[in-house]
Amino acid sequence: MSIQKSSDLVLISEVGPRDGLQSVKSIMSTENKYLWLKTLYEAGLKEVEVCSFVPPSVLPQMADASEVVNYSKALNKGTVLALTPNLKGAQLAIQAGVDKLTVPVSASEAHSIANVKKTCQEMISELKKIVEYKNQISPDVLIEVGISTAFGCTLQGSVSEADVISLAFELANIGVDEIGLSDTAGYANPAQVKSLFKLLKQEIGDKAGAAHMHNTRGLGLANCLAAFEVGVTTFDSSQGGLGGCPYAPGASGNVVTEDLVFMFEAMGVKTGINFDQLLKAREILQAALPSETIYGMTPPAGLPKGFIFND
Amino acid sequence: MSIQKSSDLVLISEVGPRDGLQSVKSIMSTENKYLWLKTLYEAGLKEVEVCSFVPPSVLPQMADASEVVNYSKALNKGTVLALTPNLKGAQLAIQAGVDKLTVPVSASEAHSIANVKKTCQEMISELKKIVEYKNQISPDVLIEVGISTAFGCTLQGSVSEADVISLAFELANIGVDEIGLSDTAGYANPAQVKSLFKLLKQEIGDKAGAAHMHNTRGLGLANCLAAFEVGVTTFDSSQGGLGGCPYAPGASGNVVTEDLVFMFEAMGVKTGINFDQLLKAREILQAALPSETIYGMTPPAGLPKGFIFND
Repeated sequence: MSIQKSSDLVLISEVGPRDGLQSVKSIMSTENKYLWLKTLYEAGLKEVEVCSFVPPSVLPQMADASEVVNYSKALNKGTVLALTPNLKGAQLAIQAGVDKLTVPVSASEAHSIANVKKTCQEMISELKKIVEYKNQISPDVLIEVGISTAFGCTLQGSVSEADVISLAFELANIGVDEIGLSDTAGYANPAQVKSLFKLLKQEIGDKAGAAHMHNTRGLGLANCLAAFEVGVTTFDSSQGGLGGCPYAPGASGNVVTEDLVFMFEAMGVKTGINFDQLLKAREILQAALPSETIYGMTPPAGLPKGFIFND
Repeated sequence: MSIQKSSDLVLISEVGPRDGLQSVKSIMSTENKYLWLKTLYEAGLKEVEVCSFVPPSVLPQMADASEVVNYSKALNKGTVLALTPNLKGAQLAIQAGVDKLTVPVSASEAHSIANVKKTCQEMISELKKIVEYKNQISPDVLIEVGISTAFGCTLQGSVSEADVISLAFELANIGVDEIGLSDTAGYANPAQVKSLFKLLKQEIGDKAGAAHMHNTRGLGLANCLAAFEVGVTTFDSSQGGLGGCPYAPGASGNVVTEDLVFMFEAMGVKTGINFDQLLKAREILQAALPSETIYGMTPPAGLPKGFIFND
C-alpha cells in the first residue's frame, strides 16, 4: 500500500488509462497519455492503473505499455499499477518497473473462458507462476487480483457467494497481496455488496481489497457507498466513466472518478484529491479523445455553492 | 397512507406527471396523460403526484389539473396526490377530489422568495389557511410538506440542520400529516441525508415523510440508499428522470423511478411494482413527448440474467 488507511480516508484507484483506453476505439497518443497521467498523479491520485500488458495485436491501444510504466515511475507520485492476464505480461510489466500488478480472475467459468480463454483453475495455475516469478525477480511488487463477475455474470447469470469466497481463499493462499471484487456485469446491488465484502473480510482479513463497481444500471455510487459502510477503503473508478460496457447514452461503464470523489469529500471522507486539478485532467482526456463521450454529473453541474473541498 | 409500511417494503411516490411535465417545454395532451397515469397505476405505483394546481398562465402544462385528478380518482388504484403552493390551488385540488396535497415550503428564505414569492413565514401562514380549509371541507385529505432546499440552496449555499428541523417542528404543530425533505439543488450527500432524516424522525416521529432526491451530481440513488438505511420508506422519483434541473447530458434532475425500483428489488426490498408494466409506461411517456430526453440506465441495459422480480 502506498498510503496509510484510516476510517476517514479512502484510496481512489484510477483505472481510466487502462480500463478506459482499452475499451474505446480511438488510440490515445503516448504523448497525450503522459500528459494525462502526469495531471492525474498531480491531482492527488495515489494509485493509477496506467496500462495493461497484452499483445499489441489484441489491444493496439496498449502497445506503449512499457514506456508508459517508465514515464509513470519517473513521476514518483504514487503507485504505478498495470494489468496483465498472464505470465508473459507479468514479466514485461515487472521488467518495466511496475509497483503493483493486477490480474483478473473470474468467479464464473463461462466468463473466464470467454475473457482469457482459460478455466478458473487454469487462471489460478497461471497466477501461481506469476507469483513465483515476481518472488524471484522483484519480491516488493504487489500482486492484486480483482475477482471478475463476483456479483453475477452475463453468461451464467448468478454467481454464488460460496464460489467467490472459496476462490478468494485459494488466491490468498497462493500469495496474492490483495483480493478485490469486481462487478463486471453491473449486476451488483448494495445489499449484496455489503454481504459479499463482509464475508471476504471474514475469510481473508486484511487481504480484502478494492471495490470495482460498474454503473451499468445506475447503481455504481450506491454500491461504492455500501462497500464503504462495511469497511472497504479502496475504490476503482475511471475518469469520465471511460471504459466498462456502456449500454446506453448516459450509462457509463465504470464508476466516474469525479462523482465518486465528490461523494466522499461531501461526506467528509478524505480522498487526498484536488478537484480543480482533477477537472484539468478531465479536459486533457477529452481533448485527447475528442470523439469519445465522457460521463460524470458533478463536472458540468459544478460543486455546490460554498462547498469547501477537504484537500 | 395508502399502504402499510414495513421494514421490507417501500413506497415509491411517482412525481413525473407533476414534477416532470411541468419542467419540460412540450405539453402532454390530456389524453396521453390519462394513458400514462393509467399505466403507471397499473404497474403498481401506489401514489402518483398527478398534477399541480397553479394558474395556467404560469404553467400551461397543468391547465387540465382538475380533469386529471377526476380521471385518476376514477381509476381507484392508489393515492392521488397534487401539488399546490397556495390556498387557491388547495381549494381547487380538494374540490377536484385529491386524496393528498403536497405543499412546498423552503428552508431557505432566498429560495422561498424566488420560488413562491413569499418568505418562509408567509408560506407557513398560507399553509395554516390550507390546513384550516381542508379540515372544514374535507378532513380526510392528507397534507404533506416537502421541505425544499433542505440540503442546501443554490442561492444561499448551505442550509443549517437546525433551520430545517425547527421548520419541520413548526409544520408538524400546525397539523401537517407528513413532512419530507427535498434535495432541490442536488447538493445532498449520504452522510448528510442520514443525519438529517435521523434528526427529523427524532423531532416529529411518524410524521417524518419522503426523501425527494435529485440526481444532479449523480448521487441520487446513493442518497436514497442512505435514507432507507435510517428508516425512510417513502421515496419520490420520476419516470425517465423527467423534471428537476438537468445541467448536462446524462444528468437527470429527479431520481429515475426505473433505476430506483431496480435497486430496491435487487436488494430484496419490495416495491409492489411490476417492472415490465413500468417499462410500458415509459414507452407511453416517450411516445407522448418524443422531443424530450428521458433518462435511466436499467431500461436500456435490461435486468440481470436470471433476475426474478419480487412482485
